[in-house]
Amino acid sequence: MAAISINVSTVKPLGDRVFIKVSASEEKTAGGLYLPDTAKEKPQVGEVAAVGPGKRNDDGSFTPLEVKVGDKVLYSKYAGTDIKLGGDDYVLLSEKDILAAVS
Amino acid sequence: MAAISINVSTVKPLGDRVFIKVSASEEKTAGGLYLPDTAKEKPQVGEVAAVGPGKRNDDGSFTPLEVKVGDKVLYSKYAGTDIKLGGDDYVLLSEKDILAAVS
Amino acid sequence: MAAISINVSTVKPLGDRVFIKVSASEEKTAGGLYLPDTAKEKPQVGEVAAVGPGKRNDDGSFTPLEVKVGDKVLYSKYAGTDIKLGGDDYVLLSEKDILAAVS
Amino acid sequence: MAAISINVSTVKPLGDRVFIKVSASEEKTAGGLYLPDTAKEKPQVGEVAAVGPGKRNDDGSFTPLEVKVGDKVLYSKYAGTDIKLGGDDYVLLSEKDILAAVS
Amino acid sequence: MAAISINVSTVKPLGDRVFIKVSASEEKTAGGLYLPDTAKEKPQVGEVAAVGPGKRNDDGSFTPLEVKVGDKVLYSKYAGTDIKLGGDDYVLLSEKDILAAVS
Amino acid sequence: MAAISINVSTVKPLGDRVFIKVSASEEKTAGGLYLPDTAKEKPQVGEVAAVGPGKRNDDGSFTPLEVKVGDKVLYSKYAGTDIKLGGDDYVLLSEKDILAAVS
Amino acid sequence: MAAISINVSTVKPLGDRVFIKVSASEEKTAGGLYLPDTAKEKPQVGEVAAVGPGKRNDDGSFTPLEVKVGDKVLYSKYAGTDIKLGGDDYVLLSEKDILAAVS
Repeated sequence: MAAISINVSTVKPLGDRVFIKVSASEEKTAGGLYLPDTAKEKPQVGEVAAVGPGKRNDDGSFTPLEVKVGDKVLYSKYAGTDIKLGGDDYVLLSEKDILAAVS
Repeated sequence: MAAISINVSTVKPLGDRVFIKVSASEEKTAGGLYLPDTAKEKPQVGEVAAVGPGKRNDDGSFTPLEVKVGDKVLYSKYAGTDIKLGGDDYVLLSEKDILAAVS
Repeated sequence: MAAISINVSTVKPLGDRVFIKVSASEEKTAGGLYLPDTAKEKPQVGEVAAVGPGKRNDDGSFTPLEVKVGDKVLYSKYAGTDIKLGGDDYVLLSEKDILAAVS
Repeated sequence: MAAISINVSTVKPLGDRVFIKVSASEEKTAGGLYLPDTAKEKPQVGEVAAVGPGKRNDDGSFTPLEVKVGDKVLYSKYAGTDIKLGGDDYVLLSEKDILAAVS
Repeated sequence: MAAISINVSTVKPLGDRVFIKVSASEEKTAGGLYLPDTAKEKPQVGEVAAVGPGKRNDDGSFTPLEVKVGDKVLYSKYAGTDIKLGGDDYVLLSEKDILAAVS
Repeated sequence: MAAISINVSTVKPLGDRVFIKVSASEEKTAGGLYLPDTAKEKPQVGEVAAVGPGKRNDDGSFTPLEVKVGDKVLYSKYAGTDIKLGGDDYVLLSEKDILAAVS
Repeated sequence: MAAISINVSTVKPLGDRVFIKVSASEEKTAGGLYLPDTAKEKPQVGEVAAVGPGKRNDDGSFTPLEVKVGDKVLYSKYAGTDIKLGGDDYVLLSEKDILAAVS
């Protein structure tokens, strides 16, 4: 059985999906972001590694995305699909699950 | 592991999202707002800290938002994503969860 | 902690929302409205105190509302958000939850 | 506390809503309508007392309704909002809950 | 209390609704239709007695229906509203619940 | 009571519905199709016996279907309505429940 | 009873469906893809064997797909319909359930 070997740089999201490298997090940083442990939707921080061409319109064109490679973003922790690649955590999600760009 | 340090002024909401600083609240103020403890949707008061470009249309344009930075707003308490930043409470939510501007 | 003080006249509903002063009600009035206690949706009477600009369209325009300030309206009792302001009851709801104008 | 007094002739339904005077019914009429007691949606007979301007379109225009004041209609018994006014039964519902006109 | 007397010929369905006279059925006919007793949606046979003007479009026009008075149709047994009129069974349903015309 | 006699050739599906003769199946065929017994949606094989005119558009035109009479198709086993006609199994379903054409 | 014999090369997906040959997987590959066993949506790797013409538009045209035959793709493990053909695993799913192309 052949092993499935996938390189991070070859991941091309489809449609309005975004491929994000999950940032290491601490529960609380000095003067930084604190993500409270509540029953509400939890945000997570990551860096955009690849973006899809956008939402496909009926005429075959694409509505471009707002985020681009390199953007630091806040996204919903429970959205999308987790992927581990070479020891790092990634997530594939729709742009609508990205809450904000941060820097 | 690098700490995630995010500055309030760098948060740029996506789409129709709004970044709101939660106002300190009292249960009842003299002649002011009283938010009754019922089974119904609860409103909360906050000040708009940043706004997204608006809802993205199919042609790539944006439908602008009604609220702007500095507006005091009433929003649904159970909507959006809570974020604590430097000891203050913030919330990221869609403009449709904002009920009214107040002043 | 600063108290949140909000004046009724400063409440500006967003989108297609309407700000309504709840009318005092009696179970049955002589020749007047009787709201039966059934399992079905219950109507309530109120007076429009402020209206939003209307539903926002994709091009940034608004579809104007049918009701205006001063209209007496029947609305669904379980819709919207209750707010008490200076001892009076108000409700913030979408125009689609208003059933009829009465006078 | 002021009593809420509403006159039937002043009820103006909003949007595509219709104000209907519920007809007195018998379980079975000679050669007439019989509404079987099944688990399925039950029809009821009434007379249109007032109609809204129609469904509001994005450009502010209205799509006119099919029914008009005086029409006898069959509607779904479980739809809409019951209102008793001066001893008579009325119902406020969307035109889509009207099944047919009868005469 | 006045009896509600409705004549079959006066029933005018609204919108995309169809008024159907339910055909008498046998469990199995020689070389004919057999409707198996399964957990799946059950078809029933009937004859179209009256049709609505079609689905109402935003500009007030109607999208005409595919079936016409006199058509024999297969429809979903659990759809619509049953009505008994002068000893016969009728059903009022949306055209989308009609599966096929048969003859 | 008159028996309902329906001939296969007279079944005319409405809208985007397709009338399919269910193919006899074996659990596994040599080098052929095997439909595993899992919790997921199960495909079934059949031959198209009749097709509707297509999905009705607002202007009264139809969007034509992709399949035609005689096509062998894979469809979702749990979709649509089963009909037995003269000892053979048929199914009436929407074209969207057809997964693929095969030959 | 005639056996159903289907050849892989004859499968033509309808609409926006994609026919995918499931890739053999290992729990973890050296420097490769690791699909963690969490409660979240699980991705799976496969190779596109056939594609449909695209989503059908109202005017009968098709919105073409983004993937093509031969593409290696990540898709949601719980989406679509499993089919075993000649000892190999295939899946038929909508393009929207494909997360990304990889190589």
